[in-house]
Amino acid sequence: MATGHTDPQRRERIIAATLDLIADEGVAGVSHRKIASRAGVPLGSMTYHFTGIDELLFEAFQRFTDHFVIVFGGCLAGAADREQAVEAVADLVHAMSAEDSQRDLVLTQELYTLAARRPAYRQLTHDWMRRSRVHLEKHFDADTARQLDALIEGLTLHRALAREPHDRAVTVEAIRRITATRESLS
Amino acid sequence: MATGHTDPQRRERIIAATLDLIADEGVAGVSHRKIASRAGVPLGSMTYHFTGIDELLFEAFQRFTDHFVIVFGGCLAGAADREQAVEAVADLVHAMSAEDSQRDLVLTQELYTLAARRPAYRQLTHDWMRRSRVHLEKHFDADTARQLDALIEGLTLHRALAREPHDRAVTVEAIRRITATRESLS
Repeated sequence: MATGHTDPQRRERIIAATLDLIADEGVAGVSHRKIASRAGVPLGSMTYHFTGIDELLFEAFQRFTDHFVIVFGGCLAGAADREQAVEAVADLVHAMSAEDSQRDLVLTQELYTLAARRPAYRQLTHDWMRRSRVHLEKHFDADTARQLDALIEGLTLHRALAREPHDRAVTVEAIRRITATRESLS
Repeated sequence: MATGHTDPQRRERIIAATLDLIADEGVAGVSHRKIASRAGVPLGSMTYHFTGIDELLFEAFQRFTDHFVIVFGGCLAGAADREQAVEAVADLVHAMSAEDSQRDLVLTQELYTLAARRPAYRQLTHDWMRRSRVHLEKHFDADTARQLDALIEGLTLHRALAREPHDRAVTVEAIRRITATRESLS
């Protein structure tokens, strides 16, 4: 009997297929059978790797947020100073709200919907926000990082959902304003 | 046969029950039968008032956003000057992210999840943002209103989902910064 021991990639394939399926059909549309089919693994191997749909969903969303934090951190790590950090944040907002980021938009909203109802997912979004702020705090003080993180969330969502998304100048001005000190404006 | 002609409130009760059901079980959990039971109306009256679940869902979310725009506008209309507008926006953020606004948080996320997938709902969220900005534009220029609207979205979501929500001082500072002009800071 195939147990998955022989294929170390199988677990990853199941997680990737789960995220794809959620993006297409929503959390409500997820089933062992559909995921197995999409991942190209035997149905029986699902229960070998995961105790149930709940564990699988949670781990899939963990993987999703991990990926975001890595991209976020990588983008900000390249900024040598505050001004470059402002540009890096604008890059992030526009990348995350671009047409080809529709999948991420859907997955983020699905995650927030879960978080609005279930404590475990609220902890996950809480951790996601905290980890994002750690990267912002390399360039900005803690209160500013918190405000900026909220602004990034709102700008990204509004650009992604708008029929006429605002242009980069508006994004940059908003980031400059929220990160401004009296000194930097004088 | 009861057609609903005799009860002008029936249509409203169906819409209210639909929103309650979505808040509890998600869009995926909605059915004619559950809504009729919750609204206390005969199952047959559902098809008298609505051509189908799609029309009902859309009208329920329209009603939901209408309500938000009215609250938003009412709160901002009471502000006599820019400073009072800043405080009014902070009030809105903290009211919308309070414990007793969990239902609105869930419904908003459900709506955004639909908007991420379906053009009709994207138009609805687009209109919602545009109508909100009209109220902000009574106090701030158009670009500032757009940035502030995104900030409100992010601050509300992050407060609502955080395990340790930021306090009002952080909200007020963020709003002051995003609405600041060189003159107002000098």
